[in-house]
Amino acid sequence: MGRWEPNTRERLAKAAMELYAERGFEQTTVAGIAQRAGLTERTFFRHYADKREVLFAGSGELEALFVRAVAEAPGGLGPLGALAVGLDAVGEVFTGRREFARQRQAVIAATAELQERELIKLASMAAALAGALRERGVEAPDASLAAEVGIAVFKVGFERWVEAADERPMGDVMREALDGVKGLVR
Amino acid sequence: MGRWEPNTRERLAKAAMELYAERGFEQTTVAGIAQRAGLTERTFFRHYADKREVLFAGSGELEALFVRAVAEAPGGLGPLGALAVGLDAVGEVFTGRREFARQRQAVIAATAELQERELIKLASMAAALAGALRERGVEAPDASLAAEVGIAVFKVGFERWVEAADERPMGDVMREALDGVKGLVR
Repeated sequence: MGRWEPNTRERLAKAAMELYAERGFEQTTVAGIAQRAGLTERTFFRHYADKREVLFAGSGELEALFVRAVAEAPGGLGPLGALAVGLDAVGEVFTGRREFARQRQAVIAATAELQERELIKLASMAAALAGALRERGVEAPDASLAAEVGIAVFKVGFERWVEAADERPMGDVMREALDGVKGLVR
Repeated sequence: MGRWEPNTRERLAKAAMELYAERGFEQTTVAGIAQRAGLTERTFFRHYADKREVLFAGSGELEALFVRAVAEAPGGLGPLGALAVGLDAVGEVFTGRREFARQRQAVIAATAELQERELIKLASMAAALAGALRERGVEAPDASLAAEVGIAVFKVGFERWVEAADERPMGDVMREALDGVKGLVR
């Protein structure tokens, strides 16, 4: 138990999600999460800064991965093509994680403070993607527009993936959403 | 002075903007705003709930106007066409208000709390626009995608309009941004 337990972090996340669903995010305490996981509060704080971080711990890595994939996409691709490569990379990360994503989405939808945090995360991703596109030689206004469209696709695609009756690869759903935008224009 | 002064509200807004620019939003107090405007705090609170509301007072009306224009756009228009009508209506509201918009943008960019509020405002607009498009018979996923694209255009277009060296009608800049999205797809 404790320090050397291999999956301590996952156990804490699972316990937190259960309590957020049962009691609500605001009513859940770190002490309660630790108890449910059969661990101490001290162990919790070795893994997460606070109870909110259980939900947002991977955001920085996700943004970095998305941006890197866009930056390193084949040079011949235009802005939307490069974003499609980024969305594929993001989709792979979520393989096998739909149940967690679904629970997380429900907790966030129920709590205004968390919705704000989620919006900030998306705005940060949009700014970082615009930067990556400018690095690829896309003009500033087009880079910002394309990045915002990429985030719109990510947001709508993510919701669709989480809510679908059957589990499909996230990459496929994202491609569909991107095709949806193209269809609107045509 | 005070209650029956015709342009009290505008004087308060002007005084607030000056102080936000000079001292920063966080360091500005309602007492300071009232003093600068030559009015009392009590008068301030008859017009605004708090110092943040000076910056967001028109948000609800703007959203309602945008949504109504989309809802009432000619029936033959597709989702992006209806959004273009909405963006035109929004553009008209800002005629002659670029200086205020520019100051407001600078204050918001400098304050994390205000950026969050701005993101929430945009997310609320996106949800309301998606609802208006569904009412027009647009399928749910396309309605959400189109609404997010509309907000992307509004966000990028607004920044471009505010930052441009010369003042152009906002509607023209919004149309350009929408054409920019179309150009990305083609």
